[in-house]
Amino acid sequence: MSVNDKSTSIYDTGLDKNTANHVPLSPISFLRRSAAVYPTKTAVIYETLQFTYQEFYDRCCGLACALMGVGVARGDTVAVMAPNVPAMLECHYGVPMTGAVLNTINTRLDASTIAFILEHSEAKVFIVDSEYASIVVPALECLKHKPIVVDIIQSKISASSIGERNYETFITEFGESKSFSFKTPDDEWEAISLCYTSGTTGNPKGVVGHHRGAFLNSVSAVLGTALSSKTIYLWTLPMFHCNGWCFTWAVTAVAGTHVCLRRVEPAPVFDAIVEHKVNVLCGAPVVLATLLNAVDEVRKKFDHKCQIFTGGAAPPSSVISGVEQLGFTVTQLYGLTETYGPALMTAWQDDWEELSLDDRAQFMARQGVIYPLTDQAIVADPETLIEVPSNGEMMGEIMVRSNTVMKGYLKNRQATLDAFHGGWFHTGDLAVRHSNGYIEVKDRAKDVIISGGENISSLEIEELLYRHSSVMEAAVVARPDKKWGETPCAFVSLKSNAKNVTESDLIDFCRENMAHFKVPKYVIFGEIPKTGTGKIQKFLLRELARSLSETGK
Amino acid sequence: MSVNDKSTSIYDTGLDKNTANHVPLSPISFLRRSAAVYPTKTAVIYETLQFTYQEFYDRCCGLACALMGVGVARGDTVAVMAPNVPAMLECHYGVPMTGAVLNTINTRLDASTIAFILEHSEAKVFIVDSEYASIVVPALECLKHKPIVVDIIQSKISASSIGERNYETFITEFGESKSFSFKTPDDEWEAISLCYTSGTTGNPKGVVGHHRGAFLNSVSAVLGTALSSKTIYLWTLPMFHCNGWCFTWAVTAVAGTHVCLRRVEPAPVFDAIVEHKVNVLCGAPVVLATLLNAVDEVRKKFDHKCQIFTGGAAPPSSVISGVEQLGFTVTQLYGLTETYGPALMTAWQDDWEELSLDDRAQFMARQGVIYPLTDQAIVADPETLIEVPSNGEMMGEIMVRSNTVMKGYLKNRQATLDAFHGGWFHTGDLAVRHSNGYIEVKDRAKDVIISGGENISSLEIEELLYRHSSVMEAAVVARPDKKWGETPCAFVSLKSNAKNVTESDLIDFCRENMAHFKVPKYVIFGEIPKTGTGKIQKFLLRELARSLSETGK
Repeated sequence: MSVNDKSTSIYDTGLDKNTANHVPLSPISFLRRSAAVYPTKTAVIYETLQFTYQEFYDRCCGLACALMGVGVARGDTVAVMAPNVPAMLECHYGVPMTGAVLNTINTRLDASTIAFILEHSEAKVFIVDSEYASIVVPALECLKHKPIVVDIIQSKISASSIGERNYETFITEFGESKSFSFKTPDDEWEAISLCYTSGTTGNPKGVVGHHRGAFLNSVSAVLGTALSSKTIYLWTLPMFHCNGWCFTWAVTAVAGTHVCLRRVEPAPVFDAIVEHKVNVLCGAPVVLATLLNAVDEVRKKFDHKCQIFTGGAAPPSSVISGVEQLGFTVTQLYGLTETYGPALMTAWQDDWEELSLDDRAQFMARQGVIYPLTDQAIVADPETLIEVPSNGEMMGEIMVRSNTVMKGYLKNRQATLDAFHGGWFHTGDLAVRHSNGYIEVKDRAKDVIISGGENISSLEIEELLYRHSSVMEAAVVARPDKKWGETPCAFVSLKSNAKNVTESDLIDFCRENMAHFKVPKYVIFGEIPKTGTGKIQKFLLRELARSLSETGK
Repeated sequence: MSVNDKSTSIYDTGLDKNTANHVPLSPISFLRRSAAVYPTKTAVIYETLQFTYQEFYDRCCGLACALMGVGVARGDTVAVMAPNVPAMLECHYGVPMTGAVLNTINTRLDASTIAFILEHSEAKVFIVDSEYASIVVPALECLKHKPIVVDIIQSKISASSIGERNYETFITEFGESKSFSFKTPDDEWEAISLCYTSGTTGNPKGVVGHHRGAFLNSVSAVLGTALSSKTIYLWTLPMFHCNGWCFTWAVTAVAGTHVCLRRVEPAPVFDAIVEHKVNVLCGAPVVLATLLNAVDEVRKKFDHKCQIFTGGAAPPSSVISGVEQLGFTVTQLYGLTETYGPALMTAWQDDWEELSLDDRAQFMARQGVIYPLTDQAIVADPETLIEVPSNGEMMGEIMVRSNTVMKGYLKNRQATLDAFHGGWFHTGDLAVRHSNGYIEVKDRAKDVIISGGENISSLEIEELLYRHSSVMEAAVVARPDKKWGETPCAFVSLKSNAKNVTESDLIDFCRENMAHFKVPKYVIFGEIPKTGTGKIQKFLLRELARSLSETGK
């Protein structure tokens, strides 16, 4: 039974949109309201600096004026490569205020990838922290058309300037900022952000976000993580990563306080939590591990509540329960750059309160249900779009329909078409749906190991290995095998205090705890390679496993 | 300096909307999520009834199926006249699920106004609580085209049925509801709601809301009033009034619990607060007065926090401080039916904490700053649109630009054009802006009297008085009233040939011809002061009414 339709009605006449009742949604409007309502409230803290909301707003307007002064206009790209310093946050407002698109660049990329991105995005201005001079200078040398370079220079960091302008003088040199009044874009479908995903093959793809989606996912973050005007937010998640999952805008929406941080190291993180009474932070599971493994001298006690929202790979339940014992509460989010960060969250259920920490951690390690303003997410066959039953066993691909899905990939029509095949956004992640409706990611589509025709989830093996007391990190990939097609191969790094653990110890441990066909046939010890955002580079491990298999090792 | 513009950019190609990345916003989507995520959580409590979110969702789908079964389609009007019972809440989902528009009717109107509304809105179905049979039956008799009438019958209330169908059997008779899957509308600009306001002249105007605005003002309510999954919301504000200011949808958005209530009387309100641990309620200032003036036997103590959001006329600071002493916290909101309820709120400032209760109450009595998702509000000259200085003295009209402004007035192009004159929505309210940016309403530009949260048009009463054979001139203004906020006070001069007419004669005459809550409580005889051009000087009458009220006359 579908909704009846009728061509016209009394509501179709004389009730049109106009400037009074239709305003394009944009997250930059949050800053205008917070500056108007709470002008003297602390908006940004960074080391010894503090900016009120009025100052924060004025600085962003100053940046917008300066960019327009050098010719930046609607549809231009302004690239930025910076750690989580105030300038990086200001770019999230000052750039879109001009109608331009903010291209945040991963600070851990190599020079040739940076050059590729700047060329592909046609960046007109490049705002860069001088800390990265040694990578950025060679990147700029590769470019045919050099952008205008604006340096963020922090006196503490010894670094030579790269460009012709200094950020601090740039944003003040246009005296008009005081009288500047920004408009939200004429159309909320206008692009606001451009983030390149590392992808495992070929060149990175440029994910284009729109004002509407950024606005809605910011609001969704407020609803989902209960941000409020009391929020003190610590910037442990890189802002270059999906615009800090939209918290760059969400924290401003509630007039919370942004605590900036140049480096995510245990000492400054614990210091900030205690000194500023930080009550929310986000990060990849590596941030949890950082907190958990901090040495006693830097680990500080605090008696206020602090929430951590984590995304990326599911943290092992042992890590979740460890961090909870330190006084944090952990909530898992799931999403991709293509969904502005979070699309699913592990919404808390009241009856979990009665569970033991371990049982609870198991529920909490499931990626969950839709984020408040995600419209729909299904686990389904990517071709037929038929949903899998909610039995916790049948795997399907996670697919999303939502205003919080990207416009598409920049200058890459084929990849865009593929991603939106059948009218759903295909995440490329395989998952099951449990009987309570919660979705659990089992693997990246390409990370599934097919051994003797059976699908093996590499995550399941990793989860088990993490439970071994000596294992620090574990990553499992497929190793080509003449007999079985593929077999699981584990890469493991051990804790510094680990005892003498051998390959067969870990294999035996797995055999005791899981179906034998799933047990890794090989275990390789050593450091595990990661991307700039802390994601394990499985494609490198896969290549290694392949070459070992070929040499018969 | 304005934002530069450029005709095309790299972002204008290959990045179009599709079903995966663009979904029309609608508040009915909140129910789908809450039912999926929290199926067993209590959604609705009413006397001895409780519905889980799954049951609530199923009942709404049942209503949608039933309405479609009797031919309701996109753009049709479904009217409802009911107290705050579960059926009333379900109408807020079941009706828009079909693409139809929900017309909530003030339960205190007289038969001829109800008949006018049903005719003007072209209601196809009329869902009505049998409590109102005595007014509704004569109203229906006036109609040329009678709607299908569905009765809400509560066994406790002795009342005869009005229509041919019973709500409870209606929503279950279509067995398809279990497999029903609603769509949000194709366009978020589609109408969702129709609420008639008693304007200052002539017939009531039908305010048409859209899905986009209802969605955004619901989210704004969540942000502004900090609703969460722990919210237990008591229905003391009539749902017919701006859809309960969008809390009908907002409480569902966070999967809070709706506690329904047939009558707003002190005993059941205090009982519910204690029994269900209600932590949020809304209402006109008369609700505050009800709580404050409750006799000791019904006034119950509670030790949890309970927030009250109040709108309409500003409550006197003595009422605010009195209610705070009972354990409530009070926040004032300001808005109109045309803005889906709240457009401004008294956002709390941290430095108010140090103030005395009286000083604080003074700040809190100001209507405030923009609600979280209200885009802009100005106090300005209605013709030149030049804003008044923020000096707390210069008066201007409050004007709003926001997605949370109505589509317009149904079948009333001139009133719509007037309301949107100059590209701003004109509230008709005069205000000043204080140096801290807070807006304070000083006067109704027109002569609306707000009694118990309901707008009463002084002109409507005057027109009626003029119909009395002995009345020469009549002018009605608001008289401050401790209980109701304001009540109508009539100034009347009699014809020279008039017989001996008393105050109670005129009051009786009004009672026979209009809704009782609109009837003047006082009639004062004498000459009516006028300007040189013959305009009645209402401000003088208002002062007189105020001083009479203060002297207790």
